[in-house]
Amino acid sequence: MDITTGSADAQTHPGYMHRKDDYLRRMKRIEGQVRGIERMIADETYCIDILTQVSAVTKALQAVSLGLLDEHMSHCVLDAAKADSPDADTKLREASEAIARLVRS
Amino acid sequence: MDITTGSADAQTHPGYMHRKDDYLRRMKRIEGQVRGIERMIADETYCIDILTQVSAVTKALQAVSLGLLDEHMSHCVLDAAKADSPDADTKLREASEAIARLVRS
Amino acid sequence: MDITTGSADAQTHPGYMHRKDDYLRRMKRIEGQVRGIERMIADETYCIDILTQVSAVTKALQAVSLGLLDEHMSHCVLDAAKADSPDADTKLREASEAIARLVRS
Amino acid sequence: MDITTGSADAQTHPGYMHRKDDYLRRMKRIEGQVRGIERMIADETYCIDILTQVSAVTKALQAVSLGLLDEHMSHCVLDAAKADSPDADTKLREASEAIARLVRS
Repeated sequence: MDITTGSADAQTHPGYMHRKDDYLRRMKRIEGQVRGIERMIADETYCIDILTQVSAVTKALQAVSLGLLDEHMSHCVLDAAKADSPDADTKLREASEAIARLVRS
Repeated sequence: MDITTGSADAQTHPGYMHRKDDYLRRMKRIEGQVRGIERMIADETYCIDILTQVSAVTKALQAVSLGLLDEHMSHCVLDAAKADSPDADTKLREASEAIARLVRS
Repeated sequence: MDITTGSADAQTHPGYMHRKDDYLRRMKRIEGQVRGIERMIADETYCIDILTQVSAVTKALQAVSLGLLDEHMSHCVLDAAKADSPDADTKLREASEAIARLVRS
Repeated sequence: MDITTGSADAQTHPGYMHRKDDYLRRMKRIEGQVRGIERMIADETYCIDILTQVSAVTKALQAVSLGLLDEHMSHCVLDAAKADSPDADTKLREASEAIARLVRS
């Protein structure tokens, strides 16, 4: 079965699936960075150095978001549009809302 | 010894120290949210729902940054200025650079 | 001629066209706000009050960007995808790059 | 009279005053860019090209904000702190609020 088609299975087989391991690895690294910040606070590290680390984690999360958004659009949205599915508009509206949250966060 | 004074110990006893437990609790919660996102990816959750969670974590990290920055300015910077220490300018420049990173991230 | 179809004319008749007057009005208002900030600086207004105005303009510009992006995706991208045009991928990549610039700006 | 001291005149003679012409020039340039975007919309330019221009203006406004904030902190805040003025805390709180608006906008 082809898991990348925009079929009725799109919801259970999202677009990022073929890069799932890559995303998991990136989130694991982010988890490690978050734990590093906890240690810095516990050790009473200078606040500016903590701020630098927090900015690094924020950037890494943003990159994950942009990647997931890309896959949502190129798989979920485009596939639904190509299949002339009425889902295309819903999925596009969801993407727009996610972009607005991302830009404002 | 008073750990909140802007003494020569300012670097080893940063301004957020009196709220250290609060910051640790917030970072622990963020760590839990990050692990939640890992589970969502492992479970192949719909990408838009993951994006919502990533935005929530980004917002929580931003709030931590703004809090740390506040404490840096009201303790490290102001205390150095009040003590007429030459450190005041250095600490202010560090704050400015951290703000710029924060605004651009 | 129907200006909303994703025909070969898409480039010269972009998706926002049917709301062109609305976008022009919003940009005129932003231009007025920018001139207001110039007057504040000329009048030596308190910097915090200027900062508040600059944030208001930034937010207004962001809203324009999100609107244009929406129209780009629902007209240019979706129409190209529905027409099975090879342009769909190019237009989507352009959208992704614009989103990344927007999130990072 | 020395307009840069953190005297009672600080409010009427804000910190950016000695670079007033520079800020006015930057805002004039931004005004020109905003008018350029209006022309692009009037001419029905491709939306992605407009988005690129809007991002450029947003970045230019952010740079103005960061500059004004810097001057607020190194003049208004630090001067009040050095003079042991009770204003220091108020001015710092105003700076913190402005930073939060900036980070979230």
